[in-house]
Amino acid sequence: MTVELVKHAAEDSDVATAARVSTIGENHDRIVDLTKDAGLINYLMRDRHGSPFEHTSFTFFVEAPIFVAREFFRHRAGWSYNEESGRYKELQPVFYVPADGRPLRQVGKPGAYRFELGTYKQHMMVTGDIRRVSTEAYTTYKRLLDLDVAREVARMVLPVNIFTSFYATCNARSLMHFLSLRTKDETSKFPSFPQQEIEMVASKMEDTFSLQMPLTWDAFQANGRVAP
Amino acid sequence: MTVELVKHAAEDSDVATAARVSTIGENHDRIVDLTKDAGLINYLMRDRHGSPFEHTSFTFFVEAPIFVAREFFRHRAGWSYNEESGRYKELQPVFYVPADGRPLRQVGKPGAYRFELGTYKQHMMVTGDIRRVSTEAYTTYKRLLDLDVAREVARMVLPVNIFTSFYATCNARSLMHFLSLRTKDETSKFPSFPQQEIEMVASKMEDTFSLQMPLTWDAFQANGRVAP
Amino acid sequence: MTVELVKHAAEDSDVATAARVSTIGENHDRIVDLTKDAGLINYLMRDRHGSPFEHTSFTFFVEAPIFVAREFFRHRAGWSYNEESGRYKELQPVFYVPADGRPLRQVGKPGAYRFELGTYKQHMMVTGDIRRVSTEAYTTYKRLLDLDVAREVARMVLPVNIFTSFYATCNARSLMHFLSLRTKDETSKFPSFPQQEIEMVASKMEDTFSLQMPLTWDAFQANGRVAP
Amino acid sequence: MTVELVKHAAEDSDVATAARVSTIGENHDRIVDLTKDAGLINYLMRDRHGSPFEHTSFTFFVEAPIFVAREFFRHRAGWSYNEESGRYKELQPVFYVPADGRPLRQVGKPGAYRFELGTYKQHMMVTGDIRRVSTEAYTTYKRLLDLDVAREVARMVLPVNIFTSFYATCNARSLMHFLSLRTKDETSKFPSFPQQEIEMVASKMEDTFSLQMPLTWDAFQANGRVAP
Repeated sequence: MTVELVKHAAEDSDVATAARVSTIGENHDRIVDLTKDAGLINYLMRDRHGSPFEHTSFTFFVEAPIFVAREFFRHRAGWSYNEESGRYKELQPVFYVPADGRPLRQVGKPGAYRFELGTYKQHMMVTGDIRRVSTEAYTTYKRLLDLDVAREVARMVLPVNIFTSFYATCNARSLMHFLSLRTKDETSKFPSFPQQEIEMVASKMEDTFSLQMPLTWDAFQANGRVAP
Repeated sequence: MTVELVKHAAEDSDVATAARVSTIGENHDRIVDLTKDAGLINYLMRDRHGSPFEHTSFTFFVEAPIFVAREFFRHRAGWSYNEESGRYKELQPVFYVPADGRPLRQVGKPGAYRFELGTYKQHMMVTGDIRRVSTEAYTTYKRLLDLDVAREVARMVLPVNIFTSFYATCNARSLMHFLSLRTKDETSKFPSFPQQEIEMVASKMEDTFSLQMPLTWDAFQANGRVAP
Repeated sequence: MTVELVKHAAEDSDVATAARVSTIGENHDRIVDLTKDAGLINYLMRDRHGSPFEHTSFTFFVEAPIFVAREFFRHRAGWSYNEESGRYKELQPVFYVPADGRPLRQVGKPGAYRFELGTYKQHMMVTGDIRRVSTEAYTTYKRLLDLDVAREVARMVLPVNIFTSFYATCNARSLMHFLSLRTKDETSKFPSFPQQEIEMVASKMEDTFSLQMPLTWDAFQANGRVAP
Repeated sequence: MTVELVKHAAEDSDVATAARVSTIGENHDRIVDLTKDAGLINYLMRDRHGSPFEHTSFTFFVEAPIFVAREFFRHRAGWSYNEESGRYKELQPVFYVPADGRPLRQVGKPGAYRFELGTYKQHMMVTGDIRRVSTEAYTTYKRLLDLDVAREVARMVLPVNIFTSFYATCNARSLMHFLSLRTKDETSKFPSFPQQEIEMVASKMEDTFSLQMPLTWDAFQANGRVAP
């Protein structure tokens, strides 16, 4: 999985500045007071005043398998996407295969699943089968292209573990909403059960977020990881 | 492809009623005058007053391959989705295979592609290869499930031509925006180059739309198929 | 304040049906089982699976002062509006004046204001002043119109307590988000401090909502009035 | 009217980079080729590929009368707002009064209004009446505040020409949609009839936009000022 921050216009002071227009009007060239900003941001998060967090922008470049992209793109509000197209471009033979530590067995009831490590045999079968099907599918894809079949038809044989790439632009509010659903965290007020592969992507995005907007991230964490 | 209208609250008079609040205030129990409504709706479409078209609601149930669903879900504004989950449910062995008349060769330059029918050999190869890869992938999927591997892992081998199903709710405005991009039509003011399979879905949705909201559909058609 | 439900396509079973597509695929002509639906809806609310609540639609006709409409229209996601226009229509002389029981004094600190009843003198001054300024403004408005001044110019003198009217269409998810911010309720997990006049509107909308979707409303109430 | 660009992350190359992910995958550290970018951006605009324009962000600080803010905030998709609050802050006595050249007479039919300059008498009456009503309303507002009446009650007397201030964040796509509706321009493919005061704001925003994203602005202009 690749997650790169391509560009951003997102700082804690953007949140504080936008929020203060409610109470003191124009203030965007004021001196930053970290202590006051931290208190204000925490108050906004706690009482769910979400709009001040929207005056920020992050653009990420992500490489992930199609089954992850499909979950990702379900996030609509405050998200913009441009993705590699299997109609316009020949896809590259890069496929996701679970690493050794990836839990393989699902136990428990719907809504409360948990995962356990697989047996040695399960790991051998999973990685072997995924490699074999991916290879066979890609070989078929290439043969159809060589026969001058349109890319949009040939790609129909490719499995959902093939990598795709996309730009995703969001703001701090839509990003926190994404993180609250696509990560597991014991400090979270609400349970979530993300598939491990999207959590790997979300976790890298959260690293970036916490570096760029540390006060906002602290407040997110301190308030049960609920997006305001 | 399946497209069923599950429910709707969408009539031409909804558009006219909402629009008239601008000029005459409350009027929602007025007598419907089709001639006046047709004129008003045409004016709204022509001058791009889009909001009156939003007070309508269509819920569709759709069955389509994943590669179609992926294009469909890129429509965010005014669309709501719930889809079958490969994490929660064992997927059924239903795969899309292009029919005989499906053009297979892409010619021309990016942005102006056109498609031509394939040769006999191309058709044989395409349908044979797609069937073979789909069967092999599904057999592998089932074997992994039998080994007690989690559904969310086993599904990684499945190709993007497997069918998925989803509910999609939209309003007349977001539906027209979808139709303007996902159908080809000579009366359209702007070119569009949808993949044939999503156009098959869009076309069925348009049949429903034109029956439920004939005046709105007429105005859409008469004004170059540009969503207001 | 007027709140009328103009039309709706919104039942508890819509939520349950949309949710079940994740786990059992097509099921939209199934028999409704209220007990199972109640359990499912409560689970969706608790774990913040919000999208199934979006396949529903309510259209309201609202009459309220401009200062209420201004707060109302800040709700963007999942809301559609058409409003009476001061550019296209002569506005009617209907103004909001606080009733006797309306608390007039704000005490406490920002973020934790509370209101107390006014003194007799305050009530006399408030109602007298609001009536006088409204009357004077409307008289001026009419005189400018009589002088053939454009409506869009003449209306500049009108105060924000003049009534406006609008259609608002939403779904159950966007409606719950609105209610969570625009009502005060002791069972709410998060504090909110709505102005009393918008709470009067919100409260009427909530009555309608609880009648049309009783299981959803129960789950909303039981889960701290947090929109999923 | 005040329009200040507070911050931005918006360049023509952002559009081109995002668009190229469809056809060539990752390319965000490529050398900028203005000629190629101009051609690509023009193609995207012409064929309404809107999403690449969304990976950009502008934050404006705006001061305008309430009747302008009310029209502004009707733009929902791709817009974020934070506004001065009459509940949390004492409003300042700054009111909009039309300047001498402001046309005052509306002639023609709905949907095709045009405006003509007013007579000397009309101008005298309009400016005199607006000043008088504004002054009287503000004096009343202050007297109610002095009597310890809550700000949210006292403000009910204030007219819609009082200035408010807000932060508005958008992307290039949502900005173009706003401009297409809130400016008049002979090169526009669709007619629009904005009120002059919001056009004054829009026009300042367009100046900023054309400086920051000249290729995108050129393509917008060359393609009939229709947002993609």
